[in-house]
Amino acid sequence: MPSDRIYKGEVEALSDPNPTATATTPAERPLETKTQDPGRRPQVVIVGGGFAGIHAARSLAHLPVDVTVFDRRNYHLFQPLLYQVALAVLSPADIAQPIRTILKHQANTQVLMDEVTGIDATGRTLSLVSGSQVGYDYLVLATGSTHSYFGKDEWAPQAPGLKTIEDATEIRRRVLLAFELAERQMVEHGWHPPLNFVVVGGGPTGVELAGAISDIAQLYMRKDFRHIDPTKSRVLLLEGSPRVLSAYPEDLSAKAEAALKRLGVEVHTRTQVTGIGPGWVEAAGIGTNGRIDAVVTLWAAGVKASPLGKMLGAPLDKRGAVLVDDRLNPPGLPGVFVLGDLAHFEQDGHPVPGVAQPAMQMGDHVGKMLAADLNGTRRPAFRYFDKGDMATIGRMDAVAKVEWPFKAHMSGFLAWVTWLTVHIFFLIGFRNRVSVFAAWVWTYFTFTRGARLITGD
Amino acid sequence: MPSDRIYKGEVEALSDPNPTATATTPAERPLETKTQDPGRRPQVVIVGGGFAGIHAARSLAHLPVDVTVFDRRNYHLFQPLLYQVALAVLSPADIAQPIRTILKHQANTQVLMDEVTGIDATGRTLSLVSGSQVGYDYLVLATGSTHSYFGKDEWAPQAPGLKTIEDATEIRRRVLLAFELAERQMVEHGWHPPLNFVVVGGGPTGVELAGAISDIAQLYMRKDFRHIDPTKSRVLLLEGSPRVLSAYPEDLSAKAEAALKRLGVEVHTRTQVTGIGPGWVEAAGIGTNGRIDAVVTLWAAGVKASPLGKMLGAPLDKRGAVLVDDRLNPPGLPGVFVLGDLAHFEQDGHPVPGVAQPAMQMGDHVGKMLAADLNGTRRPAFRYFDKGDMATIGRMDAVAKVEWPFKAHMSGFLAWVTWLTVHIFFLIGFRNRVSVFAAWVWTYFTFTRGARLITGD
Repeated sequence: MPSDRIYKGEVEALSDPNPTATATTPAERPLETKTQDPGRRPQVVIVGGGFAGIHAARSLAHLPVDVTVFDRRNYHLFQPLLYQVALAVLSPADIAQPIRTILKHQANTQVLMDEVTGIDATGRTLSLVSGSQVGYDYLVLATGSTHSYFGKDEWAPQAPGLKTIEDATEIRRRVLLAFELAERQMVEHGWHPPLNFVVVGGGPTGVELAGAISDIAQLYMRKDFRHIDPTKSRVLLLEGSPRVLSAYPEDLSAKAEAALKRLGVEVHTRTQVTGIGPGWVEAAGIGTNGRIDAVVTLWAAGVKASPLGKMLGAPLDKRGAVLVDDRLNPPGLPGVFVLGDLAHFEQDGHPVPGVAQPAMQMGDHVGKMLAADLNGTRRPAFRYFDKGDMATIGRMDAVAKVEWPFKAHMSGFLAWVTWLTVHIFFLIGFRNRVSVFAAWVWTYFTFTRGARLITGD
Repeated sequence: MPSDRIYKGEVEALSDPNPTATATTPAERPLETKTQDPGRRPQVVIVGGGFAGIHAARSLAHLPVDVTVFDRRNYHLFQPLLYQVALAVLSPADIAQPIRTILKHQANTQVLMDEVTGIDATGRTLSLVSGSQVGYDYLVLATGSTHSYFGKDEWAPQAPGLKTIEDATEIRRRVLLAFELAERQMVEHGWHPPLNFVVVGGGPTGVELAGAISDIAQLYMRKDFRHIDPTKSRVLLLEGSPRVLSAYPEDLSAKAEAALKRLGVEVHTRTQVTGIGPGWVEAAGIGTNGRIDAVVTLWAAGVKASPLGKMLGAPLDKRGAVLVDDRLNPPGLPGVFVLGDLAHFEQDGHPVPGVAQPAMQMGDHVGKMLAADLNGTRRPAFRYFDKGDMATIGRMDAVAKVEWPFKAHMSGFLAWVTWLTVHIFFLIGFRNRVSVFAAWVWTYFTFTRGARLITGD
């Protein structure tokens, strides 16, 4: 049972009395706190209950440390399937699980719903939105990223991004409402504005959203409406770079683009969006004079790291991620580990991508490093083991770059089945696996989507 | 395929040229519109996609009429299970189904998402929030009810009621957050305020909420928290009348009260709430000096009819429901049917209760009456056939007053199994039946609840 003695009055006593010494010998030796008071278990604070945070917590289950996991949400979210909540296949609860339930059998771990508002890396103290302070011996930061509008934050209300459950239900609301309002306008005025759905950004999220909207319009809605023809909807995918899925090999980008076009998605590469307003999107080369009506615009073009990196005071890259060494430490802070999307970690000259796999591996690695500290041995270096990457395109197609257990580029139905299998496997919780699998079977064979609710305002 | 010619310009042509004649001979003959223009199909407008509205629409499937269903939501909600969404057993999509999907095979019916803002019963025209007007030959009003705070609307933010999906997710948020904040306060301050949950109103909804909160606290939460003991929560049920479930026979009220007490719920009958504020409830005889701390307060004490009754200009009862005769017509309006919770219909000297069964039967009856009109015969009178009533109390208990196929008073496990069976049977949609059944089996045997998400702000 973790103690709560680290709070408040005790914070001072736990802070490193000699921060300069720590800063000069990063990661080479266990932290002083352990040797100073052999009876006291090191206090590990993990901020963020995403892939990295949950894996970090689990990796510490059998070490003699006390772990506290903070998250401002009460649940872990399986973000790779969030677009399926946005497009009415799944319910939020299918892909979310309370963090304290995931970790309930781990006796050395407590979970608290709270939000960090400040980090004092010298004093080893976090400030929380609840007004309390918490000390730590080890700090694990894994608060991920959010969308970035590249300085055009005024676009945000017009073009929601997809990071949270609330984002997903808002996108679901907008997409479903677009068809409802078109039907109503058709009846009342004999006319409705064009049903153009514009997705900005051709990375995996943009490709998955565009494919899924096309599916909804072409296959899932057509029998439900009397006056409009949902199959006449247009889906535009706008990507600034020369190809979609630009992080993938070129042959897979080409296959993805071809698959999107088969679904009727209009793919515009080398297309920079210059303006987004209520009901329209501006970009050279689209619509009339570079402007197109958009009944729904979705943003999948950029991410920035969570503000906790900045609070840490460590060097950041241009999207706000913390530069870390191969022990996942920011320079001079061996007691702080930064993981997942919040970390900028370079391997073989390239930054590791901000996706689930490296986040999970970094989390797992925290346990190995702390075990080394506790044994007085040197921390092992982190190395990302890339098993591959994949993205779905509509209800039957996907592209996959497989790196392990064999190397291959896959596309089409087989890649799609692989995608399904991998995602079911990695979902946390038996119930979620069953309910997601059931929803997929249902959706696939009946051509109906189970979660077509317009909620919120 | 329904036509849209009834809109706008045509409204005038369709309105009854001789309203006085209509008013003097209610329900005895078909409406003039039919005989005036034999080629034109009567236009039936149904407002509200709840039990009454959906059943009314279905009852018209094979009649030579054009049907338009309006609802401000895009889905039909299975309200008897809404408390299970509020208490994290089910997801919203499990008990909701798009109205247009329910009616998609019905060729004479169109569904529009819109809200009625005014009714001109003489001119037979509805005004819609979209700004349009729609004419009708027959109007079916089935917009149900909402909670009533008996003039104390300032209590609403402190004590949400349970009528919509948004209400349910808000209640879920408050209940789950109460435990999270208590855990946090216990860690940070070594103390937390009492976990008192107060449910105001001892009808079926109040009894079901109180029983379910007790279940959560006693059974479902205890392994998840390290510092607080959820089983120390208190659940108070406050009821103004002498007994809970006052619409049930006295023996079942007594059994329900005993079952609640076995679950640890503190039942206070003859207890009038006199004040509700942030974190407290006032009522003579509870707490110290008639005031008790309340971490969550829920309102299940009163309902009032939807404002559409008032818009109609017909006589209303004191909760705003429209007085209707045995043809479900308000006085003098044979072309208007009012159904479900919005109707005040008396049978054998008592008003029929505002629950699902009479709503469904009234909906079905609309089809019989319109068939009579179309055949030129007299409309049959409506008679409510009461099959009984039931309410669950926690995860194993229920009370049921069975009227059909045999008469009995049931309680305990058998009543609970009956409740489960009936509710699965009446859910609309095969998928919802499967997913609700699966969620129940899961919840019952694993003692975990699948939808424990704190969403919203």
